Amino acid sequence: MRNNKKIAFIPFCFALLLLFLFTRQALAADLLPSWNDGKTKQSIIEFVAKVTKEGSPDFVPMAERIATFDNDGTLWAEQPMYFQAFFVFDRIKALAPQHPEWKEKEPFTSVLKGDVKAALAGGEHALLEMAMATHAGMTTEEFEKIVKDWIATAKHPKTKQPYTEMVYQPMLELLAYLRANGFKTFIVSGGGVEFMRPWTEKVYGIPPEQVIGSSIKTKFEGRDGKPVLVRLPEINFVDDKASKPVGINEHIGRRPIAAFGNSDGDLQMLQWTTAGAGARFALIVHHTDAEREWAYDRTSSIGRLDMALDEAKAKGWTVVDMKKDWKCVFAWEQ
Amino acid sequence: MRNNKKIAFIPFCFALLLLFLFTRQALAADLLPSWNDGKTKQSIIEFVAKVTKEGSPDFVPMAERIATFDNDGTLWAEQPMYFQAFFVFDRIKALAPQHPEWKEKEPFTSVLKGDVKAALAGGEHALLEMAMATHAGMTTEEFEKIVKDWIATAKHPKTKQPYTEMVYQPMLELLAYLRANGFKTFIVSGGGVEFMRPWTEKVYGIPPEQVIGSSIKTKFEGRDGKPVLVRLPEINFVDDKASKPVGINEHIGRRPIAAFGNSDGDLQMLQWTTAGAGARFALIVHHTDAEREWAYDRTSSIGRLDMALDEAKAKGWTVVDMKKDWKCVFAWEQ
Repeated sequence: MRNNKKIAFIPFCFALLLLFLFTRQALAADLLPSWNDGKTKQSIIEFVAKVTKEGSPDFVPMAERIATFDNDGTLWAEQPMYFQAFFVFDRIKALAPQHPEWKEKEPFTSVLKGDVKAALAGGEHALLEMAMATHAGMTTEEFEKIVKDWIATAKHPKTKQPYTEMVYQPMLELLAYLRANGFKTFIVSGGGVEFMRPWTEKVYGIPPEQVIGSSIKTKFEGRDGKPVLVRLPEINFVDDKASKPVGINEHIGRRPIAAFGNSDGDLQMLQWTTAGAGARFALIVHHTDAEREWAYDRTSSIGRLDMALDEAKAKGWTVVDMKKDWKCVFAWEQ
Repeated sequence: MRNNKKIAFIPFCFALLLLFLFTRQALAADLLPSWNDGKTKQSIIEFVAKVTKEGSPDFVPMAERIATFDNDGTLWAEQPMYFQAFFVFDRIKALAPQHPEWKEKEPFTSVLKGDVKAALAGGEHALLEMAMATHAGMTTEEFEKIVKDWIATAKHPKTKQPYTEMVYQPMLELLAYLRANGFKTFIVSGGGVEFMRPWTEKVYGIPPEQVIGSSIKTKFEGRDGKPVLVRLPEINFVDDKASKPVGINEHIGRRPIAAFGNSDGDLQMLQWTTAGAGARFALIVHHTDAEREWAYDRTSSIGRLDMALDEAKAKGWTVVDMKKDWKCVFAWEQ
């Protein structure tokens, strides 16, 4: 009787052992179902295979398997405007009752009239003014709640989907595939770090401490006898172009072995990543699908991809042709 | 025959299962051997027990178990000077042949004569000048190599031990104990972030991306056709006092549930940590052991512990009495 029980236990034991030993490899084959077979998918799988194979000359210890991802246009869409701009406009509308002076003060007047184009005509100065009016003055925890409430309810103007559904299904699979292979995944985005952190863990599986982005300064002070961090209307760090490697170094302190972007704003991150010793991987998401998403590159004002596309071709980086390489773009599109 | 083999396999299977299921609990009991039994050790174990017990009102999900540690005086010693100051003086001596002008330029002249007191007489300005002369001008990778070479060979003037042996054995155990209980451990130090990162993983088990510290600015540029980050002689961030919560928020993006320090420079980090909702833990290492280490607090120019000691008493934070609470201070002292 006891022996029978023990024998019955054996298959379970074997299953556990097999699971323990082969989980990583077993998962790998199925983790990229939204990617069409071909050169692009193959380049990802080959890179991951060689850096994870012990004894291979390209093997990279797990602690050094750092992968950095741009966000806008790489993990989620960025058309017809960066989504954080929609947040800014919505916040201006929500805050308008407390700011009667905005009725006669540009760029706020135009936003309240619904004229985005006129609001943006003021250029960088107008943008900065709107950003500060909506991102500063509150504590970090108050701002976190504002972002959480907005992201839970706001809808994309064209697709009517929540913004957190405007994420690319193949890239979610890629994030999970890399993590299943011992990579640590980071976001390195020009977007506001505290605009992303409240939802990246749930949506991408990337915890706040692995999100790097642009930021404004904060100040430690007491409010009602409690210590808080107050958000100041002053730029701290703009995480774009040549500042992306700077931000990576400040935050991570080691060079990524793989980097993923979609625009010229990611070029220096890709250069910095691929200039390191040993096996390296750079990938660019090329927006080629006007039907399922948007098609834009060299002349777009948002997510311009020009120099980086040339360099990708010259250096043999992987370029994703969204139309050709992705079975689906968004999870909800079928 | 086959059945016998299978039966022989059972004990191994059981062992594996037990290991898998009970590792965490089994390890916990033995992970603090250098701590004497008593109130201090008990407070640590009780906090960890309640935040890790599922179903407990104080339970904290693993992703939120963030613990931050000061470095100088908390994880390693800081007497008779911050160890980074020894690094600065050694670097000035090593670089002197390339700087003949230092023979007649304070504070360098005094350093080269071995007169530390005179060198430091110039106050903050002299310190900054020495820091920049030794920390800027090279690439991040060149600086990493300089730190690695120094830390591998330099010895503490009193104990003649390598600086990486001047770490507190009970604190190493505490770091490992917290990690075994699902905590993510971070360093939050006034020391230079790139002075710590080259060795914290090996010595503390804390990877570079979990080290927050003071920093100078860096610039992305091409050198000999290769992209590099060059260290500039300009302060970027001073991670001390009220800036510690700022640095924590910038880098981690969530409030720690436990914080560990030893001086007034850690006070705001401890206030910020304990002001959050739910179970919180704050600990101060009080240097009370003139025999095995050093004894200093309210009037020390290095690691002054005055306001934070009062606040610890008022708020019931855990205060480690090094002499009483620690069986040993350094691993090599027996």
